[in-house]
Amino acid sequence: MTIQRFFSDNAARVHPRVMEAIAAANHPDTAYDGDALSAKLDDAFSDLFETRCTALWITTGTAANSIALAHYARPWQGVICHEEAHIEVDECGAPAMYSGGAKLILAGGEGAKLSPETITEKCGQIRADVHQVQPSVVSITNASEYGLAWRPAEVAAAGEACRAHRLKLHMDGARFANAVAFTDASPADVTWRAGVAALSFGFVKNGGMNAEALVFFGDQDLSGVRELRKRGGHLMSKGRFAAAQLLAMLEDELWLANARAANAGAALIAQAAGERLMHPVEANELFVRLSADEAASLRAQGFDFYDWGSGAARLVTSWDQDAAAVAPLADALRAL
Amino acid sequence: MTIQRFFSDNAARVHPRVMEAIAAANHPDTAYDGDALSAKLDDAFSDLFETRCTALWITTGTAANSIALAHYARPWQGVICHEEAHIEVDECGAPAMYSGGAKLILAGGEGAKLSPETITEKCGQIRADVHQVQPSVVSITNASEYGLAWRPAEVAAAGEACRAHRLKLHMDGARFANAVAFTDASPADVTWRAGVAALSFGFVKNGGMNAEALVFFGDQDLSGVRELRKRGGHLMSKGRFAAAQLLAMLEDELWLANARAANAGAALIAQAAGERLMHPVEANELFVRLSADEAASLRAQGFDFYDWGSGAARLVTSWDQDAAAVAPLADALRAL
Amino acid sequence: MTIQRFFSDNAARVHPRVMEAIAAANHPDTAYDGDALSAKLDDAFSDLFETRCTALWITTGTAANSIALAHYARPWQGVICHEEAHIEVDECGAPAMYSGGAKLILAGGEGAKLSPETITEKCGQIRADVHQVQPSVVSITNASEYGLAWRPAEVAAAGEACRAHRLKLHMDGARFANAVAFTDASPADVTWRAGVAALSFGFVKNGGMNAEALVFFGDQDLSGVRELRKRGGHLMSKGRFAAAQLLAMLEDELWLANARAANAGAALIAQAAGERLMHPVEANELFVRLSADEAASLRAQGFDFYDWGSGAARLVTSWDQDAAAVAPLADALRAL
Amino acid sequence: MTIQRFFSDNAARVHPRVMEAIAAANHPDTAYDGDALSAKLDDAFSDLFETRCTALWITTGTAANSIALAHYARPWQGVICHEEAHIEVDECGAPAMYSGGAKLILAGGEGAKLSPETITEKCGQIRADVHQVQPSVVSITNASEYGLAWRPAEVAAAGEACRAHRLKLHMDGARFANAVAFTDASPADVTWRAGVAALSFGFVKNGGMNAEALVFFGDQDLSGVRELRKRGGHLMSKGRFAAAQLLAMLEDELWLANARAANAGAALIAQAAGERLMHPVEANELFVRLSADEAASLRAQGFDFYDWGSGAARLVTSWDQDAAAVAPLADALRAL
Repeated sequence: MTIQRFFSDNAARVHPRVMEAIAAANHPDTAYDGDALSAKLDDAFSDLFETRCTALWITTGTAANSIALAHYARPWQGVICHEEAHIEVDECGAPAMYSGGAKLILAGGEGAKLSPETITEKCGQIRADVHQVQPSVVSITNASEYGLAWRPAEVAAAGEACRAHRLKLHMDGARFANAVAFTDASPADVTWRAGVAALSFGFVKNGGMNAEALVFFGDQDLSGVRELRKRGGHLMSKGRFAAAQLLAMLEDELWLANARAANAGAALIAQAAGERLMHPVEANELFVRLSADEAASLRAQGFDFYDWGSGAARLVTSWDQDAAAVAPLADALRAL
Repeated sequence: MTIQRFFSDNAARVHPRVMEAIAAANHPDTAYDGDALSAKLDDAFSDLFETRCTALWITTGTAANSIALAHYARPWQGVICHEEAHIEVDECGAPAMYSGGAKLILAGGEGAKLSPETITEKCGQIRADVHQVQPSVVSITNASEYGLAWRPAEVAAAGEACRAHRLKLHMDGARFANAVAFTDASPADVTWRAGVAALSFGFVKNGGMNAEALVFFGDQDLSGVRELRKRGGHLMSKGRFAAAQLLAMLEDELWLANARAANAGAALIAQAAGERLMHPVEANELFVRLSADEAASLRAQGFDFYDWGSGAARLVTSWDQDAAAVAPLADALRAL
Repeated sequence: MTIQRFFSDNAARVHPRVMEAIAAANHPDTAYDGDALSAKLDDAFSDLFETRCTALWITTGTAANSIALAHYARPWQGVICHEEAHIEVDECGAPAMYSGGAKLILAGGEGAKLSPETITEKCGQIRADVHQVQPSVVSITNASEYGLAWRPAEVAAAGEACRAHRLKLHMDGARFANAVAFTDASPADVTWRAGVAALSFGFVKNGGMNAEALVFFGDQDLSGVRELRKRGGHLMSKGRFAAAQLLAMLEDELWLANARAANAGAALIAQAAGERLMHPVEANELFVRLSADEAASLRAQGFDFYDWGSGAARLVTSWDQDAAAVAPLADALRAL
Repeated sequence: MTIQRFFSDNAARVHPRVMEAIAAANHPDTAYDGDALSAKLDDAFSDLFETRCTALWITTGTAANSIALAHYARPWQGVICHEEAHIEVDECGAPAMYSGGAKLILAGGEGAKLSPETITEKCGQIRADVHQVQPSVVSITNASEYGLAWRPAEVAAAGEACRAHRLKLHMDGARFANAVAFTDASPADVTWRAGVAALSFGFVKNGGMNAEALVFFGDQDLSGVRELRKRGGHLMSKGRFAAAQLLAMLEDELWLANARAANAGAALIAQAAGERLMHPVEANELFVRLSADEAASLRAQGFDFYDWGSGAARLVTSWDQDAAAVAPLADALRAL
């Protein structure tokens, strides 16, 4: 029996076109990011986002997030984020290391989304004195930790709250593609037009191998950003292999096609899950109520996934698990 | 005219067998380092080094060095290293970031090598009080920044000096392969048998794509090491593509074959360079006295390389620049 | 009209006996902590705590807390504390700076006390992997931020929970004196006998000028502690003036007498406040429901204090505000 | 036999007028730096320096230096300083901790002075890329570690070199008073008029107890400075006792009178030392060639001091060791 794995999109195969691009990059070129492929990134992302972008390849989302936050927060400042944000829960304190000690200031919010009201409220609770850490940046996650996609108007409201308190807005887009595929919003509308200053744009979960993009929008003072990448040990010698991945993903909208496939898989499972769903399914993550017996039954049929506390499971679909591919799981779920 | 590039081995092509291994790894497996290939690393390196090793893949040498040093040095402690060491000169302060502020304590030494006498002398100069940063670890580079290979006895002497002062010994082996290829020493003799606790074992400069190995020898308390890798954003989701590279390099001693080829290329150029050499050529780096006119002449003939201050040049050969490949440069050099 | 100030004990006068001790220390001696008075601290605190202690003078509680926590937590580790703890709320991220980035892991708890159940629960919620920051130390505050005193049995239960999870236990005792004065527990019973490894023992709020004590109990590896004090810029040249304060406070139990006076003042006000009290008054802090009009009325009569959100006030009594001194405020409160 | 101590001015008595000012400050006032005395500092220093100053009290010079440098250097940047500077040699890495990892970039220079040529040369040696740490600030020490006083023109030349490379200029003035007393320069001429942005103005070595001043000149963005003081645990509750010291030292130029007395003592000893002097004596430090026998002889006569390597000694005079007071030592030295 082949096991169908729904643990995470982060362990999926690399898309063949990405593999081809990597293979095609195997000729000598200038080291680090001095090569011809890396030189194309700014333009490629600028085209996609309809504004001048500075785009850096980075190996992981953790590093991309940390570099962006360390750029915007001095060591004694803080980052407002959701208490279930990846930067708080799953990055082993990386933002604190990169920033020299900046603090994550935690807030709640339905579906792991940080509402504009929460941003404003949180700012209001912080006394403007030297005893309390003052925030300088807000980080939101799109899609959220529970797979919810931000609409442009939602981001714009958060952006407005940030502007009012002179905070930069960072978006952790580990599953940005899935979110955009769901809302059909233009990448520009859901980012810089809504006030986002920097985006950690995820590709690894979406068919890449080991390259994410850190995208800064418009004309910003970016001093320190490239230093932080080097300082974190992320300035790879043969950067062209990272750049090749990103360019392949952008070409002919492969990133969107992959995300749509994963979303379609998730949607089909969601239909089958019905009342079991704990959160709306907007991207490619499903949180499903499932008894221990039911989980065991699914596993016995060859489907595997993470338990989510007790009585529930998390399933994630990948770019190569579209509706057709996940039909057996959907059937099995219905049959429970 | 095709340009023959001698800028650095870090920009060379990836070896075909490494490319094949990467392609072969493109199937789903557990994320991070939970995959089947990553699980083989400890054994593979243990075989090579004839002792129990713990081996982690890491994207860059900068990160590998920093993680090792941050493991051995608490924030208020120091790392003794050569004033021309890569960690001091070319890593944008990465060890300070990873360690939470540990200090590099600099010393001199012929050919960028740190002699045991220098280690002892440096320790003697540091007052044992709280005003001065106390060292906890020494880092040496093999091959050194000037391409000199450490003999086992030299390392053992450094190791002895470290033991006497209760210092751990780390080896930055960005070009460890080239050094071993030159001395023909056993990897064990030039590392743990000589007192080395941890080795940053470089593969990227030697035919890899983006994976180095951080190797800890024997039974050590390694608490914090994996946390540091995660915290630096270096725990890649699809770690199998890194593990695949390392395993391919170890298989049938590809790492040694590649290094021997590069060394042979360097040796041929060295012969041609004769009196021009500023340092003995033991690995794959050449430092050559060259007037501006001579450099221009070589460049006009299609050879390129870095200037090294004025009146000199640095040339580095890669795994695909063996004696046959570099013969034209050797000829041109002789003809100057 | 003289204003009677109930803002905080941290702004009160220095006790005359402390002033005298400072004046008496004004003769040359060895710099830093090499003087005769500093040399007496270990013994003086060992006597008080009935076990071998290592005691360092430190200028502020913020620094004492940070040094203790940075000693017990490596940069990638965490400190479990109450979400209203001073280290979280009022120290501008100092523990993160001293430790090189360690994280405060927040938990709730009635009266700003961290229960053993909460410690255990929090540990249970943290996955034992490298993605999540692992705690190495717990910090509790005695008296708590709401002025509640820990009983020895309570501390022992927290200590037991820490031992079970291999966590060190630190006590922030900015108002340790007031807590001990209330419970009448022996200093030993409420600290090391109950599992506390280190105590930030506050004196400034209790009649000192600018010296707190950081006390480590028993035989511990204290490497790094004195380095951290120096590194924080807290190794004063003329340390004898700090040591003199601590010795004066310990002599004839001045610290307890002062705390008892402050507590007595608070108790008298508490009696008058009656139903207005938001927390039991065990030490010298009072949280009192007070309308804006009532607050204004008290201020018009010459009493001043901090508002505590809206509809409430915080009042703190000092060593020189005993029952007799605060009688007018008690009367005014009753008369509202 | 009374021992006459020439170890360091940092262990000397506190001047009686400072003691009186401390005693006079012993009444309740607002906590931290909200008191009436702290409020006077900006004006007092502005008067002295003939320009608008922001002045903060800080317990130690180490903290003052670190806060200034952490303000001007981001974690990935560097501080150019002399290789024998106190911040490099005697502060246990404090600047690295406060700044979140900024690097000290070391340079040589006669008498522990950093010449403008050296600053320029050092900048020239640093490649403007992300691999090397880029400096953002220069720190000079006045009087230097060897007791040499900077003339206004010298500082201005250093300031000019800094401006040319867009570097801020910080002055560690642990013995600023002694330097100014020697040159008779106006405080303004030797600081901000010569390009100094911030001064760590030492008082403890000159008759204070435990308060130094960190002075920023003119209109600067000082965001972060007060946060760093708090974050370092240096925002004392009863700040008025620190402010009182600084105000007492400024009043009637006590700081200059004290420095002149110490300098006069040093000058008399210098006369006696003659050929033995290793550096010109401009402030209150003397470096004297002295055989082991000679040193023993002086000690036998009741004079004590630090050995300076072998065959030499360091002697420092304090504000209460003027020419009359040190005459016996001068005689003894002559008699050797």
